[in-house]
Amino acid sequence: MAPATILDTTPVSNGASKATSSPAQLVKADSNKHDIVLKTFRLLIADLCQQFNGGHPGGAIGMAAIGVALWKYVMRYAPHNPTFFNRDRFVLSNGHTCLFQYAFLHLTGYKAMTFDQLKSYHSERVDALCPGHPEIEHEGIEVTTGPLGQGVANAVGLAMATKNLAATYNRPGFEGLVSNHTWCMIGDACLQEGVALEAISLAGHFRLGNLTIIYDNNQITCDGSVDLTNSENVNDKMRACGWEVIDVEDGCFDIAGIVEALEKARRSDRPTFINVRTVIGLDSKVAGTADAHGAAFGASEVANMKSRYGFDPEEKFVIGDEVRDFFSGLPERGEGYVEEWNRIVDRYEEVHPELGANFRARVAGKLSERWRDLIPKAGELPEAPTASRAASGMMINPIAKELESFVVGTADLSPSVHMTWPGKVDFQHPDLKTGCGINGNYSGRYVHYGIREHAMCAIANGLAAYSPGTIIPVTSSFFMFYLYAAPAVRMGALQRLQVIHAATHDSIGLGEDGPTHQPIELATLYRAMPNILYIRPGDSEETAGAWIAAIEAKETPTIVSTSRHKLPQIKGTSRDGVLRGAYVLRENDNAVITLLGVGAELSHVVGVAEKLAQEGVEARVVSFPSWRLFEQQPIEYRRGVLRRDRTSTVVIEPYAANGWERYADAGVCMKTFGHSLPGTAAYKYFGFDVDTLTERVKGYLGKIKEDELLRREFVEL
Amino acid sequence: MAPATILDTTPVSNGASKATSSPAQLVKADSNKHDIVLKTFRLLIADLCQQFNGGHPGGAIGMAAIGVALWKYVMRYAPHNPTFFNRDRFVLSNGHTCLFQYAFLHLTGYKAMTFDQLKSYHSERVDALCPGHPEIEHEGIEVTTGPLGQGVANAVGLAMATKNLAATYNRPGFEGLVSNHTWCMIGDACLQEGVALEAISLAGHFRLGNLTIIYDNNQITCDGSVDLTNSENVNDKMRACGWEVIDVEDGCFDIAGIVEALEKARRSDRPTFINVRTVIGLDSKVAGTADAHGAAFGASEVANMKSRYGFDPEEKFVIGDEVRDFFSGLPERGEGYVEEWNRIVDRYEEVHPELGANFRARVAGKLSERWRDLIPKAGELPEAPTASRAASGMMINPIAKELESFVVGTADLSPSVHMTWPGKVDFQHPDLKTGCGINGNYSGRYVHYGIREHAMCAIANGLAAYSPGTIIPVTSSFFMFYLYAAPAVRMGALQRLQVIHAATHDSIGLGEDGPTHQPIELATLYRAMPNILYIRPGDSEETAGAWIAAIEAKETPTIVSTSRHKLPQIKGTSRDGVLRGAYVLRENDNAVITLLGVGAELSHVVGVAEKLAQEGVEARVVSFPSWRLFEQQPIEYRRGVLRRDRTSTVVIEPYAANGWERYADAGVCMKTFGHSLPGTAAYKYFGFDVDTLTERVKGYLGKIKEDELLRREFVEL
Repeated sequence: MAPATILDTTPVSNGASKATSSPAQLVKADSNKHDIVLKTFRLLIADLCQQFNGGHPGGAIGMAAIGVALWKYVMRYAPHNPTFFNRDRFVLSNGHTCLFQYAFLHLTGYKAMTFDQLKSYHSERVDALCPGHPEIEHEGIEVTTGPLGQGVANAVGLAMATKNLAATYNRPGFEGLVSNHTWCMIGDACLQEGVALEAISLAGHFRLGNLTIIYDNNQITCDGSVDLTNSENVNDKMRACGWEVIDVEDGCFDIAGIVEALEKARRSDRPTFINVRTVIGLDSKVAGTADAHGAAFGASEVANMKSRYGFDPEEKFVIGDEVRDFFSGLPERGEGYVEEWNRIVDRYEEVHPELGANFRARVAGKLSERWRDLIPKAGELPEAPTASRAASGMMINPIAKELESFVVGTADLSPSVHMTWPGKVDFQHPDLKTGCGINGNYSGRYVHYGIREHAMCAIANGLAAYSPGTIIPVTSSFFMFYLYAAPAVRMGALQRLQVIHAATHDSIGLGEDGPTHQPIELATLYRAMPNILYIRPGDSEETAGAWIAAIEAKETPTIVSTSRHKLPQIKGTSRDGVLRGAYVLRENDNAVITLLGVGAELSHVVGVAEKLAQEGVEARVVSFPSWRLFEQQPIEYRRGVLRRDRTSTVVIEPYAANGWERYADAGVCMKTFGHSLPGTAAYKYFGFDVDTLTERVKGYLGKIKEDELLRREFVEL
Repeated sequence: MAPATILDTTPVSNGASKATSSPAQLVKADSNKHDIVLKTFRLLIADLCQQFNGGHPGGAIGMAAIGVALWKYVMRYAPHNPTFFNRDRFVLSNGHTCLFQYAFLHLTGYKAMTFDQLKSYHSERVDALCPGHPEIEHEGIEVTTGPLGQGVANAVGLAMATKNLAATYNRPGFEGLVSNHTWCMIGDACLQEGVALEAISLAGHFRLGNLTIIYDNNQITCDGSVDLTNSENVNDKMRACGWEVIDVEDGCFDIAGIVEALEKARRSDRPTFINVRTVIGLDSKVAGTADAHGAAFGASEVANMKSRYGFDPEEKFVIGDEVRDFFSGLPERGEGYVEEWNRIVDRYEEVHPELGANFRARVAGKLSERWRDLIPKAGELPEAPTASRAASGMMINPIAKELESFVVGTADLSPSVHMTWPGKVDFQHPDLKTGCGINGNYSGRYVHYGIREHAMCAIANGLAAYSPGTIIPVTSSFFMFYLYAAPAVRMGALQRLQVIHAATHDSIGLGEDGPTHQPIELATLYRAMPNILYIRPGDSEETAGAWIAAIEAKETPTIVSTSRHKLPQIKGTSRDGVLRGAYVLRENDNAVITLLGVGAELSHVVGVAEKLAQEGVEARVVSFPSWRLFEQQPIEYRRGVLRRDRTSTVVIEPYAANGWERYADAGVCMKTFGHSLPGTAAYKYFGFDVDTLTERVKGYLGKIKEDELLRREFVEL
């Protein structure tokens, strides 16, 4: 057995002292206090919802005993060091029950969660720490949840992060360096969401023994009983996916049973699913019904509950001394964990100085600046036409090969997305032997996510959320399938997580796969989404710029959007230009028109300018890979690029025009879905060949001479 | 046993004659022909991919025997009457194997799929019937597939349509009126996608015995063997979800075994999962590997395959007479089905004249014009402030109650979305007894989809695709969760399916649920997506207009986007105005500014105009519920509404501005995600209260006086 000071599978020590009692022993010793603790907690939740007559009381009340088991007996965390690196991670995937977590953060001694703050739930207080769903910005919250199912996938990512870091850094005698467990609380709803089902399947495949899902099985959703929509045998389903399953029959009161299940889960070498039967809104008059889910119980019923519990019906927010006592000592216990871990790291650095320094940097979230040298310089890029998806690989592969911060993966498109590097090792359970002979281990940093785009991006959020900057996840798929993943990509942007999405096969230029695969309107979403960079580079040099922007964006996800087909290298393109969002590619002081070109079609636009020149029409060309980066530039720069004072501006991009109206007076864009044709034929079919484009642009110049008001309207050509 | 003329569970008659042989007997009689048929088919696929050196040969080749079993022996369809109402539906969820379907459509005698057309796969022919993925526009294709997993959910919808129509119209002796089966072909990938997993769970719950999934289990995906990403026991998983499971060990050759499994599946009272082991790219040198998936085999290898099969390596696209003979007679058999069914319908009309007329109308896709009378008139609407989600219910509930064309459902938000009506019956298996006591039967038209937004919308596509206009599905959820469903909503738009999405809780006005639930950028996606109406009504009268537009849009999905909170009834709003997309709500000939207001914030904008007037600034107000409808108006109308020649235009909407630049010079919009606060407080926090808005608009008028160029730029206030 490992020494008690190593935080892997050993019993929890109670506080900083060396005396250890098993959680089971501690539960037994405390058992006479549980009744008052649970009653106090449940009434507290009822009061907090009643205060502003809203919120979600039922789930939190039903889960009270689970919370006691977790926060008091099982989870290893440090309330006064909320970001302690080796802490257990807790994810509340059923985020609407956030009061559950907020109340335990308060009771266990998180400093920010004062009693006053706890009471801010549903208030008008703009600095409240108790929003309607948990938010990563706040102490003790690992990931923002709310959209159902996301948290499950985040938890898979968090558990993968632990496995990867442990396999990379842990050494004999230092099993406690990275050894935390991830606990994910879910409700009935999460088990219905596809993103969770995808992640569950993958977690079973990866045999993530350090992951536990705790299922608040109350059989109630908004519409009524779960059997309105679900008749499956969930335990069998989880077993079929490679999970251990433990049942807890009395989840409302049996703290000892829950603790036993949780401890067993921590020791399992498979992910564990604990199916805990609870009663939503226990002991209220709406107990066990959908009415307990999303509304306060009403003042009189809250008073009745108090009377039934032997509390004063007139008093609110009562937390008695014995309950305060019950939760006291947890910050000290937490500091014990922190000190133990610090000692382990110190000793590790002595024994393994190089690894130790590397580990410290990872913990600090410091990415080696070597990445800048690893990106090919302008002169080093091949001159031959290159698909920008291949150029993407040229940029990130050498970095991913050398720098362990990068965990790169794909939704089953390895042959298409160019994200592998020589000698890449797959992230896999080390015992796995695959049919195709490609094996791996947990230190591997290439992840086969399967055909699970949504889970891929939600898991990537979990990898990034493990600790800021420790892991920079890169996902990859066809751009169109980032619509499947959009809810997760959005959550990454909302949480300010650095996740890089290598999205290939953008535009109709992808060809034969047809309109189901040709993204006409998707860029519009990502250009409108706050805090995400959508970048469409036009050639290899611009692709370098896109990756530089992505790696520099420490608090922002990026989509590097690339072509399936080969693109010529365009004279004058500039990675620095990409970093400014847009820049002048062809200046012309006599220009009457400024053409905006983007990504795979930038070379078409350069061709149009040349053809216009032959026909006596002077044009400028602006390369415009990223709206968001451009918006961040000073107005003088922006005006200098666009020159709207002196030219008409026309954008050319086979996407929906929406939003280009900000920068252009007219556009050749897509008004319909695409068409299945070879790439060049698809461009021609929709008029994106140079000849047709040139005619359209000339036509526009004619039109605005005839109708002055067109200058104030965006004209689709 | 039912008479042989009723197409429910009886053996297939071979042709129009009354002599019947069971499929098993037919297979046995044919067995000496199978070898040449399979070889011919496989070489045909190899040739079709080799022709333009691209495409997906491996899956189609592996599935050849499954195809023979389906099209020759088991499926009931009519090549010369491809839209025959009671035909079995076939869905190719692994749509990239489309050649599989195209080749069988050709061989079985679909008129449009000539040999010439078959050879158009991957060609530059713009009128090709062989796009890279199957498209609903073409004969014999039930739904467009390609994005993986969608087809599974579509198939669930198709099977639900049959169940619903059968329960509504079939009567004793007329079991063959609506009795078709749905067959869904899938690959390894579909089983990993969340949308499929959601739909599978729901199909098991509904016990859709008329649905069969045929799993092309070749254990290969793009990245290599499936065990790179998946270790689950799929049969156990399907059983846990309530499916029958049948294994077929030799799926490459054992046509008899496949037929037996398919026939068993047709008779099952549960959905059936047939796990068929196949070899991708069988008999090519890349057989059983990922290389067989997405690339032609190379000319020499195709020649080698031919030599090995005893074919002339120099000859291409060979379909010998014996193979032609093998597939002959299928159109005649199909006409037999059609004639039998026509006789059933004729007899049914005699016995059940009222039902019969009703059924005929449904088959013809005719919606009773009574819906117009059922929508409340302007004078009938409550004058009290009303949440537009509640107004949505007022419009659609009376229609859904009366008109059986409507199948309304929700992703577990019945209490929130107002889509139920008095006496509504749930769509459920009649034997189901739920915990909450709400039961139903298959004639029910209210669907509890569970917390499965993505599957809900993909299933709705299947309901709509069953036969044009026969069913108009209505889905419902919070607007934000139409991001989860977006890939399916997109497929509905691409397929020109009339599906109506009742999306509630739009805008930051939803309040406490916070930024995870507040849709800032999602409308931008749907406003850019081709062929979909996104409509944000501003009060009850406008909500009537939104529903009228949605019901009139026979080939276009609609999102009716409504508020959580109560909205005042605004003087002058007009349902007819909504149908034009935007209209003048407050005219003012002296106006210097036109304010564009939308949806839940329209009343704020009216308030701003009033306040501006008090301060001596004359303003017009335009209500602007739908861009797409507005774009369909003549330019004179559009110019008359916007008056950009005489006023500055400012839009006010707490969404990302992207795209408003087309109609406005400036905007008060959202640049960040939202914030968890009570609705009114959230509006104030972001400056969307009337006072702050008024100041911002006045500020803009000041700014443009100082900087003329701002008039050419969109200004975010």
